[in-house]
Amino acid sequence: MLCARAWRSLSPLFRKAHLPAWKQTQSYTATARLDLSGIYPPIATPFTAKEEVDYQKLEENLQKYAKIPFKGLVVQGSNGEYPYLTEEERVEVVRTVRGSLPADKLVMAGSGCESTSATIQLTEKMAAAGADTVLVVTPCFYKGKMDSRALIQHFTKVADNSPVPVVLYSVPANTGLELPLDAVVHLSQHPNILGLKDSGGDITRIGLIVHKTTTQDFQVLAGSAGFLMAAYCVGAVGGVCALANVLGRELCELERLCLSGLWEEARVLQQRLIEPNTAVTRKLGVPALKQAMEWFGFHGGACRSPLQSLTEAETQQLRRDFSSNGWL
Amino acid sequence: MLCARAWRSLSPLFRKAHLPAWKQTQSYTATARLDLSGIYPPIATPFTAKEEVDYQKLEENLQKYAKIPFKGLVVQGSNGEYPYLTEEERVEVVRTVRGSLPADKLVMAGSGCESTSATIQLTEKMAAAGADTVLVVTPCFYKGKMDSRALIQHFTKVADNSPVPVVLYSVPANTGLELPLDAVVHLSQHPNILGLKDSGGDITRIGLIVHKTTTQDFQVLAGSAGFLMAAYCVGAVGGVCALANVLGRELCELERLCLSGLWEEARVLQQRLIEPNTAVTRKLGVPALKQAMEWFGFHGGACRSPLQSLTEAETQQLRRDFSSNGWL
Amino acid sequence: MLCARAWRSLSPLFRKAHLPAWKQTQSYTATARLDLSGIYPPIATPFTAKEEVDYQKLEENLQKYAKIPFKGLVVQGSNGEYPYLTEEERVEVVRTVRGSLPADKLVMAGSGCESTSATIQLTEKMAAAGADTVLVVTPCFYKGKMDSRALIQHFTKVADNSPVPVVLYSVPANTGLELPLDAVVHLSQHPNILGLKDSGGDITRIGLIVHKTTTQDFQVLAGSAGFLMAAYCVGAVGGVCALANVLGRELCELERLCLSGLWEEARVLQQRLIEPNTAVTRKLGVPALKQAMEWFGFHGGACRSPLQSLTEAETQQLRRDFSSNGWL
Amino acid sequence: MLCARAWRSLSPLFRKAHLPAWKQTQSYTATARLDLSGIYPPIATPFTAKEEVDYQKLEENLQKYAKIPFKGLVVQGSNGEYPYLTEEERVEVVRTVRGSLPADKLVMAGSGCESTSATIQLTEKMAAAGADTVLVVTPCFYKGKMDSRALIQHFTKVADNSPVPVVLYSVPANTGLELPLDAVVHLSQHPNILGLKDSGGDITRIGLIVHKTTTQDFQVLAGSAGFLMAAYCVGAVGGVCALANVLGRELCELERLCLSGLWEEARVLQQRLIEPNTAVTRKLGVPALKQAMEWFGFHGGACRSPLQSLTEAETQQLRRDFSSNGWL
Repeated sequence: MLCARAWRSLSPLFRKAHLPAWKQTQSYTATARLDLSGIYPPIATPFTAKEEVDYQKLEENLQKYAKIPFKGLVVQGSNGEYPYLTEEERVEVVRTVRGSLPADKLVMAGSGCESTSATIQLTEKMAAAGADTVLVVTPCFYKGKMDSRALIQHFTKVADNSPVPVVLYSVPANTGLELPLDAVVHLSQHPNILGLKDSGGDITRIGLIVHKTTTQDFQVLAGSAGFLMAAYCVGAVGGVCALANVLGRELCELERLCLSGLWEEARVLQQRLIEPNTAVTRKLGVPALKQAMEWFGFHGGACRSPLQSLTEAETQQLRRDFSSNGWL
Repeated sequence: MLCARAWRSLSPLFRKAHLPAWKQTQSYTATARLDLSGIYPPIATPFTAKEEVDYQKLEENLQKYAKIPFKGLVVQGSNGEYPYLTEEERVEVVRTVRGSLPADKLVMAGSGCESTSATIQLTEKMAAAGADTVLVVTPCFYKGKMDSRALIQHFTKVADNSPVPVVLYSVPANTGLELPLDAVVHLSQHPNILGLKDSGGDITRIGLIVHKTTTQDFQVLAGSAGFLMAAYCVGAVGGVCALANVLGRELCELERLCLSGLWEEARVLQQRLIEPNTAVTRKLGVPALKQAMEWFGFHGGACRSPLQSLTEAETQQLRRDFSSNGWL
Repeated sequence: MLCARAWRSLSPLFRKAHLPAWKQTQSYTATARLDLSGIYPPIATPFTAKEEVDYQKLEENLQKYAKIPFKGLVVQGSNGEYPYLTEEERVEVVRTVRGSLPADKLVMAGSGCESTSATIQLTEKMAAAGADTVLVVTPCFYKGKMDSRALIQHFTKVADNSPVPVVLYSVPANTGLELPLDAVVHLSQHPNILGLKDSGGDITRIGLIVHKTTTQDFQVLAGSAGFLMAAYCVGAVGGVCALANVLGRELCELERLCLSGLWEEARVLQQRLIEPNTAVTRKLGVPALKQAMEWFGFHGGACRSPLQSLTEAETQQLRRDFSSNGWL
Repeated sequence: MLCARAWRSLSPLFRKAHLPAWKQTQSYTATARLDLSGIYPPIATPFTAKEEVDYQKLEENLQKYAKIPFKGLVVQGSNGEYPYLTEEERVEVVRTVRGSLPADKLVMAGSGCESTSATIQLTEKMAAAGADTVLVVTPCFYKGKMDSRALIQHFTKVADNSPVPVVLYSVPANTGLELPLDAVVHLSQHPNILGLKDSGGDITRIGLIVHKTTTQDFQVLAGSAGFLMAAYCVGAVGGVCALANVLGRELCELERLCLSGLWEEARVLQQRLIEPNTAVTRKLGVPALKQAMEWFGFHGGACRSPLQSLTEAETQQLRRDFSSNGWL
């Protein structure tokens, strides 16, 4: 496999001639260089009382998000309850977001499935629905067999066949599996793989990934607001943060402080964001994220079953985690 | 909720009147008492060279399995690569098995999905395709939120709506989640939940589940051949064992020895089965199971991607685990 | 290294000539064949109000234990709070037990330390204090480096130098480390290693250990009452069970039922012991064991700090776990 | 308990009058304000061929370390093989270091034991041997019972009785236990507890600890070089880094860059240190640290058994991890 840099040094015509058919009709050159840097909310999916996707409420959220200086939106990340949506719903939500969002905002669509072929098919549908790039989670059911060999083959096949560039996605809290470092480094050389969303939070690993892919223009995104500043510090270019559904402006401000080298101010802001972030992710999960969205003027609402609404005690805990840090 | 025993003590007419509509047209009484005791292979799914389901090879395997004294077959268990099949394939494979298998053999069909509603829909399709009972795995993606409250609600809704009785399925090696004991005990009281397939292998837990559900006629199946004898010892009624795809007669013989109280002979046989079992499950997984099937006269073949074929070294290891125990 | 069987087939004179000096003065032949089969309480250490070892209460417990058909006692197992005792106390407690206990009861003394040399020295002291055999836990602080190579060398050196035969001890709940199967099999060939106390509770592993050491006369002891019956079923010869400090007669009765092939009665008894056992081990630990001892007429009392006494809620939970199974 | 700040606001005379006797003869006020900021190597313990502590080689290492701008040395941290030393050796090594090291360098001595009373006694001996502060690891054998209640009581008793200020030590890779956040926050209020060495590497947690102890003048030290820069970024004041035994000047340079706000240069240096650091800690452990010390002009040598020397393959891996980052 050619490394991304070598690939890009070839003439566009040569590259086009050696690509699969679909790639010859795509602006592959441009997408391969897609700049991911910035903040993304992995948006929640609002439902009606009958647990159907509520496209109207979704649109209203999108209008509010459009006013926040996000780089783009992640649609069908873990916080979008994608495992609970049908394939048709997954694609339709992406289409809706793309149709509503200003053209200068990126749409990163989750297209990962357990099998390679299903992932390839959904990736193509996401691209057709307007996704600028796809976020592909590690398959995980047969986790004992998902070693570097299997994962490299999986992501390579997906990237070989994807009309849009691919972002790798490692989220061990949900999958019970971390995309191994050697697999990341190997895959960073693929010309159609742009970067990695790393939600594990191991800052040593993130620093090492940046270090070992430095010649590949490989872009690492922090997968949670809890370690966003530290990730910038070691070389990440942005973040996909559940908390951005709630405190989006504040996370964009944290980005600005980090990029401006205002580390003291950044630290103060970062520290106030840790507890709210933990509350809406590891501690209380998507139901808490959706509850907090309601408090901050967005449509959250209930989750699909089997995700349960918060208990009264959990709601109070959630409120404390925001209020004790000055957000409520 | 009524406990199963109390429920069954009510008059059939009363029960019918208080059931959802579909149940009133089903032989609910009969199925609720379905006797699960015995050995089941969770059958593998053969594929063609193009990775399509190979129904002809499947039929040939079924003809061989029909001659082994299995209680029935599990279709779309973990070893069936169900997460890599489309919903249509999952149903069609069950229909094929039911059509081919003698009527006195049970078909237990895996119908678990991540969301409750998808699980209910697939369960109905499996029943319509001829499944005698469904095996419902724990949802697991949002594992941090899949506590007893969420899981009890999930399985209760599924059981309330299922035309056929439900078997719970806990397989932490794949899901990263164990169905909690208190949830099992609670769910054992549901009249449409028959039992549990427990693949975790914690024999203390299995003994305790038997103990705490003893008044419910709740049936526990060992989820792996490695602890089958011990599970019989503490009160299980059978086993769903990957290894039964390969050494089915031997596992039925182990069942016979345990039920006959021939514990010494049982122990000798059980011990010879541990390494082959570990090889085709935890150590080398479904690709090893399918390779071993080839050696023993069944159609195994390749897995769907991202599951990889065994390396040469793994194949040799697999062969050793069978040959050193006298099976090859 | 010679395997135990080959070693024993040599003439006693030859063996004596090839042993380290101390072994030449010991009845090595006899001790190597020590029969471990039976039930052992890993006794608790009573303390005075000033947290000093209360030898008088210890003696009173011993007099009661002497009347129960135990094979012997384990002194300085995990339940004896050995990590909180000084070396002098550890040895003195063993001396006291040996002095008080009838000669036909075995004293198995815990002599494991982190370093090999400290373990060898304490082993010698334990033998001098009257231990019939020593129980040697896996070192565990540098758990990342405690692979089979390190552990085989450690236990081999200890066994080479021990005046009394050695029993291996694997207790992952405390050490965070399981003695690997291949290390157990290798070490089973050592003529001065008698067996293994396995507290992990993985019954598949226990069965496999019995299977792979069958030619070595290697004796496996269940390390907890929760899986005692299952362990007998797959070939263990006895158990070292915390619960035997409280319900010793009942555990000896369970042994009798298993050895007599009265599996139905055994199962009923086993099942009633699981919850009390879990309560005094994994769930509430040594403080609960000592509390329950008080209820059943033994001296338990407080633990050394930092182990805390039970809270009121924990005490009630403990009582329920005994009473709901008919023991209180 | 008074918080540290409130305590310090009291008049010195009042404080002295309300301290235990020993504290009245100590410069408690001064030590309570001990500034920990800076880099510390947790020094290795060299042994002779007979596995005895080699005090001469230790002195030679100390003379070299004295020329590096360390804030001080940690003696009897995990890398000092303290669990393999006798109590006498532990104290004597501290005495030797104090005697050899310039007076302006801090000696932080590991004094943690499993029991509270043993820890208190060893702490007193360490102070008498010249330690400026003690590093107290979490007790861990009964890890299931080492909850916040137990750990708060343990550390409070130790700090109440210690003649020198105490630094908490959380090192889950070795202990299988993380000092819980709420316990850290509670203990940060103790006037004789200065800070925490956190070796877990969870940067979100480190940031939150800094945030929640900000009013206490509580000092957090990174426990490994792999996340040193990120730790500075979120508010740590220094690091105790195994790698400082080998690349001490480089780690002090990294400190300087971070404190000077030269984050770009810091990042480049940090990234080159990750693989060497992982090699001498998590991947290959103390034997690798000692091997690397030899390459860089220090005395390393063999470890005490059961720690094994590196295999040839491991040595080559270690060399690669240094050479590929430009250090060899």
